[in-house]
Amino acid sequence: MADFKYSSGLWVFGNTGDRFNLAGYKQPVPIADQVRAAAKVKGIRGVECHQTDFDEISPKEYGRVVTDCGLVTTNVNTNVWGSAKWMHGAFTHRDPSVRAEAIAEAKRSVDMAHEVGSPSVGLWLGSDGFDYPFQVDYLTHWNLLVDAIRQVAVYAQPGIRIGIEYKLREPRNRMTIGDAGKALALAMEIGLDNVGCVIDFGHALQCRESPAESVAIFARHGKLFNVHFNDSFRDWDDDMIVGTVHVWETLEFLYYCRITKYKGWFGLDMFPYREDGVAAAQMAIDNLNAMAAMLDKLDLPALKKAQESMDAVASQEVIRKLVF
Amino acid sequence: MADFKYSSGLWVFGNTGDRFNLAGYKQPVPIADQVRAAAKVKGIRGVECHQTDFDEISPKEYGRVVTDCGLVTTNVNTNVWGSAKWMHGAFTHRDPSVRAEAIAEAKRSVDMAHEVGSPSVGLWLGSDGFDYPFQVDYLTHWNLLVDAIRQVAVYAQPGIRIGIEYKLREPRNRMTIGDAGKALALAMEIGLDNVGCVIDFGHALQCRESPAESVAIFARHGKLFNVHFNDSFRDWDDDMIVGTVHVWETLEFLYYCRITKYKGWFGLDMFPYREDGVAAAQMAIDNLNAMAAMLDKLDLPALKKAQESMDAVASQEVIRKLVF
Amino acid sequence: MADFKYSSGLWVFGNTGDRFNLAGYKQPVPIADQVRAAAKVKGIRGVECHQTDFDEISPKEYGRVVTDCGLVTTNVNTNVWGSAKWMHGAFTHRDPSVRAEAIAEAKRSVDMAHEVGSPSVGLWLGSDGFDYPFQVDYLTHWNLLVDAIRQVAVYAQPGIRIGIEYKLREPRNRMTIGDAGKALALAMEIGLDNVGCVIDFGHALQCRESPAESVAIFARHGKLFNVHFNDSFRDWDDDMIVGTVHVWETLEFLYYCRITKYKGWFGLDMFPYREDGVAAAQMAIDNLNAMAAMLDKLDLPALKKAQESMDAVASQEVIRKLVF
Amino acid sequence: MADFKYSSGLWVFGNTGDRFNLAGYKQPVPIADQVRAAAKVKGIRGVECHQTDFDEISPKEYGRVVTDCGLVTTNVNTNVWGSAKWMHGAFTHRDPSVRAEAIAEAKRSVDMAHEVGSPSVGLWLGSDGFDYPFQVDYLTHWNLLVDAIRQVAVYAQPGIRIGIEYKLREPRNRMTIGDAGKALALAMEIGLDNVGCVIDFGHALQCRESPAESVAIFARHGKLFNVHFNDSFRDWDDDMIVGTVHVWETLEFLYYCRITKYKGWFGLDMFPYREDGVAAAQMAIDNLNAMAAMLDKLDLPALKKAQESMDAVASQEVIRKLVF
Repeated sequence: MADFKYSSGLWVFGNTGDRFNLAGYKQPVPIADQVRAAAKVKGIRGVECHQTDFDEISPKEYGRVVTDCGLVTTNVNTNVWGSAKWMHGAFTHRDPSVRAEAIAEAKRSVDMAHEVGSPSVGLWLGSDGFDYPFQVDYLTHWNLLVDAIRQVAVYAQPGIRIGIEYKLREPRNRMTIGDAGKALALAMEIGLDNVGCVIDFGHALQCRESPAESVAIFARHGKLFNVHFNDSFRDWDDDMIVGTVHVWETLEFLYYCRITKYKGWFGLDMFPYREDGVAAAQMAIDNLNAMAAMLDKLDLPALKKAQESMDAVASQEVIRKLVF
Repeated sequence: MADFKYSSGLWVFGNTGDRFNLAGYKQPVPIADQVRAAAKVKGIRGVECHQTDFDEISPKEYGRVVTDCGLVTTNVNTNVWGSAKWMHGAFTHRDPSVRAEAIAEAKRSVDMAHEVGSPSVGLWLGSDGFDYPFQVDYLTHWNLLVDAIRQVAVYAQPGIRIGIEYKLREPRNRMTIGDAGKALALAMEIGLDNVGCVIDFGHALQCRESPAESVAIFARHGKLFNVHFNDSFRDWDDDMIVGTVHVWETLEFLYYCRITKYKGWFGLDMFPYREDGVAAAQMAIDNLNAMAAMLDKLDLPALKKAQESMDAVASQEVIRKLVF
Repeated sequence: MADFKYSSGLWVFGNTGDRFNLAGYKQPVPIADQVRAAAKVKGIRGVECHQTDFDEISPKEYGRVVTDCGLVTTNVNTNVWGSAKWMHGAFTHRDPSVRAEAIAEAKRSVDMAHEVGSPSVGLWLGSDGFDYPFQVDYLTHWNLLVDAIRQVAVYAQPGIRIGIEYKLREPRNRMTIGDAGKALALAMEIGLDNVGCVIDFGHALQCRESPAESVAIFARHGKLFNVHFNDSFRDWDDDMIVGTVHVWETLEFLYYCRITKYKGWFGLDMFPYREDGVAAAQMAIDNLNAMAAMLDKLDLPALKKAQESMDAVASQEVIRKLVF
Repeated sequence: MADFKYSSGLWVFGNTGDRFNLAGYKQPVPIADQVRAAAKVKGIRGVECHQTDFDEISPKEYGRVVTDCGLVTTNVNTNVWGSAKWMHGAFTHRDPSVRAEAIAEAKRSVDMAHEVGSPSVGLWLGSDGFDYPFQVDYLTHWNLLVDAIRQVAVYAQPGIRIGIEYKLREPRNRMTIGDAGKALALAMEIGLDNVGCVIDFGHALQCRESPAESVAIFARHGKLFNVHFNDSFRDWDDDMIVGTVHVWETLEFLYYCRITKYKGWFGLDMFPYREDGVAAAQMAIDNLNAMAAMLDKLDLPALKKAQESMDAVASQEVIRKLVF
C-alpha cells in the first residue's frame, strides 16, 4: 500500500539466542550482512540499527552498504541494556558516572542519526526498571528518567525526533516506562516537540492494551513517532511474525494508523529464534500487504455507522467480510 | 497507625452475586444497614457510597445514619454502569441524550457530595470501553471522555475533588481508562486542580503495574486523590481481603503512601462473594494495621542505602526482616 | 460442512448480567422462548439445556418445543453452582447433605437426558474450587470429587455419557478441574467408558493451552465428548462470538477436530452481554462455516510435510493462504 | 526443619544472561566452582547438575568435589534444549537421528546418576513444544514423547527415578508438557513406578495453578518426585528468590509437602540474573527455614476445622497469625 512504509530492525537478521541457549540458534552475522539480508526482503525500504552497531562498522561504511542496498535508515535505537555494565539501569542508574555514560550513549545515537540520515532515535530503556518489590526508589527513578530523556531530546534538537518505546517487562521484571499511558504522560511532562512515543505491537498486547487504541491515544496528541511490528501470544513479547496470531487486532491497528494519517515507518521487530530471518521478514511484509489490501475493501461508511450504534454485532458484520 | 485512615465501600456489606448467580450469595441489604455494618468494623471511620444509593435513601436520612454511627462519607462514587441503560457506555455514549444523562448523574454525585459532606467524587467509568475489536471509534471515544470529565470537574469547583479510577477490564472486555498512565495523562490533559486519580490496588495488579510505583507516579504530580484496597490473584479484579495474597507488594504500597505523605483515605473495595462482609472487612483492617506496624519497624536509612545500590538482595535483606 | 454439527446453549438467548448489573442487560426469557430463539439461527440443529431448566418447564413440554423447532437436545448440563446453596461447593462440599444433593442434581441431569433424548450430561463444576490459599483441603477435595463423578457416571450407564468440562477460574478464583490435563487425569483415574472430557474453547485459552492440542490430547485417549465454542481475549472467559479474536487458533482447533474424526457437537457457549443472542449466534455459525470452508481448501499433504520439517515458516506458508 | 532437605541447581551459581545480553551479566563459572559456591550456602546439602556438565568435568572429579564439599547430588537434569541442535525439539524431533540422540542424552543422564549417586534424573523438555499455531502435529508429538520417556524410564530401572518437570512456555512459546495435569496424565499413561513428576514452584504459578494443590494432586498418586523452588510475578518464570513475592502460597506449598509426607529434596532453581548467586541462595534458604518455622506454629486442628467450614475468613483467621 502506498501509505505504509516498511522497515526492519537489523537484529531480525542476526543471531538469536535465549537464556537457555546463550550461544544462539544461529551464527553471529556482521552488521553489513544484516543490511544485505534486509535488502533481500521484497517490500522493505529501510532499516533500524543501534548506536552500538557502530562499534563494529563505521557509520560511513554502514551508510554505503545501506545506500548500495537501496535502503535508508529509519531509526537509530539506543542500546543501553545489552551488556553487564547496564545491569542495574541506565538513565536511572544511581551511580552518576554510569548514568552519564548512558546519556552519552543516547547522544551518540543522535550523532549517528545525523550521520546516517535517520530521522529519529529510539529509546527503549530495557534496563531501567526493577526485578523485586522495594528494589528501587520509584520517585528518584522517575525524576532521573525524565531528566535524562529531556537532556537527550534537547541535544537532538532540531531535526532528530526521540521516540520513547514502552514495554511492561523483560529483561527487567518490570520496566519503568511500562505502557502507552506512562509513555504519553512522560512525553507530556517533558513537553518538547521532538519527544514522542513508539508502539511495539507486541508490547501493547503484553500490557493488555488494544494496540489500535494506543495508536489513537498517541495520535490525539501528535505523539506517534514510530511503530515496531510483530505478533505474540499476548502475555509475553514473543516477537513472532506479523499476523500469525492476531488477525483482527493487527487489521485494526493498521486501520487506525491509516485514519490517523500516520506517516512514519512500520519497522519489523521480530525475533525469529528458530526461523530464517529473511523468510520470516518476507512473510511479515506479505501479511502486512495482504492486510492493507483487506483494508482497501473495508466499507468505511458502514463501519463508522456501526461504531455509532456501539453494537458489536453491527461492526463485526462489516469487518468479518474482510476475512470470512 | 495514625497516618492511615480507613474507610469502606458500602457495597462490601451488600449482596454479592456474579454472572452465574444473579440472585446473589446473600440477601439484599438496605443502604442504612450497610452503613451500620461498616460501623461494626473496628478501625473504619468512613464510608464510600454511590449517587444511586440516594434513589433508596434520602441524603438527609443517610447523613443521619452515618453520623449516628460515628462515621463520615469519604467519597461519592458515580454509578453509570449498573443498569441496562449504560450497556454501551456513559460518558462516551454516542447517543447525546444518554451521554448527557450520564454526565448529569456525575453532577448528581457532586451535589450529593456537597450534601453529605464528602470531599470527593469517584469516576470509575465501568461501561466506557469496548468488548470487540473495531467496536468503537477510539478517537471520538477519548474526545467525549475528556470533555465529559472536564464538564463534571468544572461543575465540582470549588470544593469537590474528582478522582478518576482506572481499570483494565470488567465489566467491559477493555475499559477506556485502563491503567495508571492513561489516568495520569488524562488528568494532565484536563489540567484542572480538582481532577486527580484513584488507585485500586487490585486494578493496579490487573494491569501488571507495581501498585507502589503507581502511587509514586501520581504523587510526583500531586494527583493521588483516593485509594481502593483489596487483593487478588493478579490477573483479575478478585476483590479479595487485603493482604491475603500479596504481602510484600501491599507493604510496599503502604510504604509509598507514607513517604509520599498521602493524606487521603484507604477505602476497602472488596467483594466478599461468599464471606461475611463485616468479618472480611475487619480482617482487612487488621491486616492493614499489622502491615502499618511492620512499616514502623522498617530500617529506613538501611532501605534507602540498599536502594541506592540497586542490588535486590541488599533491599530484600532489609525488608525480609519485617516478616521472616 | 457435513462433518460439523452445531448446537447452542440455551443461555445464549437468555438474559445476561454481571456482578455490576445483577438485573441484567436484557429481560428474563422463558426456556421455551430460548429454544425458539435458537431455532431462528440458521445452521443450529441442537440445543444444550440445564437440569434446572426443568424447574420451569416440564421435560415433556420442553421436548415438544424442541421437536417442533426441528431441533434435538445435545447435552444436559448440570447446574450446581447457580444459587447460594452451592456457595461453597457441590461435589466437594464438606457437608454430606449438600454434597448428596449436588450428586442427586447430577443424577437428575442423567434422568432428564434419558427423558429428552440427550446423549450426554455435562459436568462443569463451577462452585467446586476455592478463592483463598489454605481455604480448602485439596486432598479431601479431590477424593470427594472423584468419588462423586464416579457415582454419577455409574448411574448413567449405559447410554449417557458424562463430559467433564474444565475451567481455570470464575466463579471461584480457582476451580478444582482447572485444565485439560487435570480433566484427562481425572477421567483416567475414574476409568469408566462413559466418562470423558469437554473442551470449551475459551476455557482452553484461559489456561494458556493450545485449544487444538487439547483436542489432540483428548482424542489420543478417545475422551473428547463435547465442545463448547466461543472466543476471548485469552486471559478470561469472555464468551465472545466465535472467530472474532482468534482466527488461526480457531481454524487449528477445527482442523484437529476434523483429523481426529470428532463426531460430537459444537455447542455455542457465548455470553452476548450487550448483543442480541440470535444475531450473535448466527454470526458464530457463519464464522464457523466460513472457517470450515477454509479448511476444505487446506493443502493437507503440504501441511503434513511442513510439520515434519518443524519449521514455522514452512507451515505458516501453507496456512496463511487460507486468509491472506 | 528436620523434614525439609535443601539442594540447589548448580546453575544458580553460574553466569546468567538473557536474549538481550547473551554474554551474560557475570562471568562463566567452572562446574567445580559452582559446586563450591553451593557449599557456601548454609543449609544446602545437595546439588542438581545436568548431564552436559560432564562434558566439562569427569563424573569422578565432579563426585570428588561434591563429596569434599560435604554435599550429595540430588538430581541429574537432562539438557536437550541448550544448543542449536535441539532447536526444533528433542524427544519429539521428527528427524529420527536427532530424536535418538536426545534419548541417548537422557540415558547418559541415567548413567551419570548411577555414577554420581543421584537418586533421580530430571526431564524438563524445554525444546519439545512449538512456537506457532499449526507448526507441529500434536498427535505425533505426543506419541513420540510418551514413547521416548518410556524408553528412558525402562533404561533407568531399577534404581533411578525419572521426574517429568512441566512448564507452560519458554523457551518455546508453548511446551508440550505444560502443566501438572498433563504431567500426571503422562505418568499415568506410561504407568511405570519410576516415572513421576517434578513441580517447579514458578512453573506452577505460570500455569495459574495453586502450587500447593499440585503437590496434593501428585501426592494422591504417589508421583511427586522432586521440587524446584523459586518465586515469580506469576505470569512468567522469573526464577526469583524464594519467598520474595508469594508468602502465603509458598507457605501453603510447604504445608502440603509436609502433610503429604514428601520425602524428596527442595532444589533451588533460581536465575539471579543481576544478583550474587550465593547471596540469593542463602536468602532463599533463610526464607524457607523461616517459613518452615512458621508452619511449626500453625494450629493444625484449627485449620482443619476451618477448612471443613469452607469459609475463607475462618481459614485465614488461622493462617494470618503466622505473619501478622
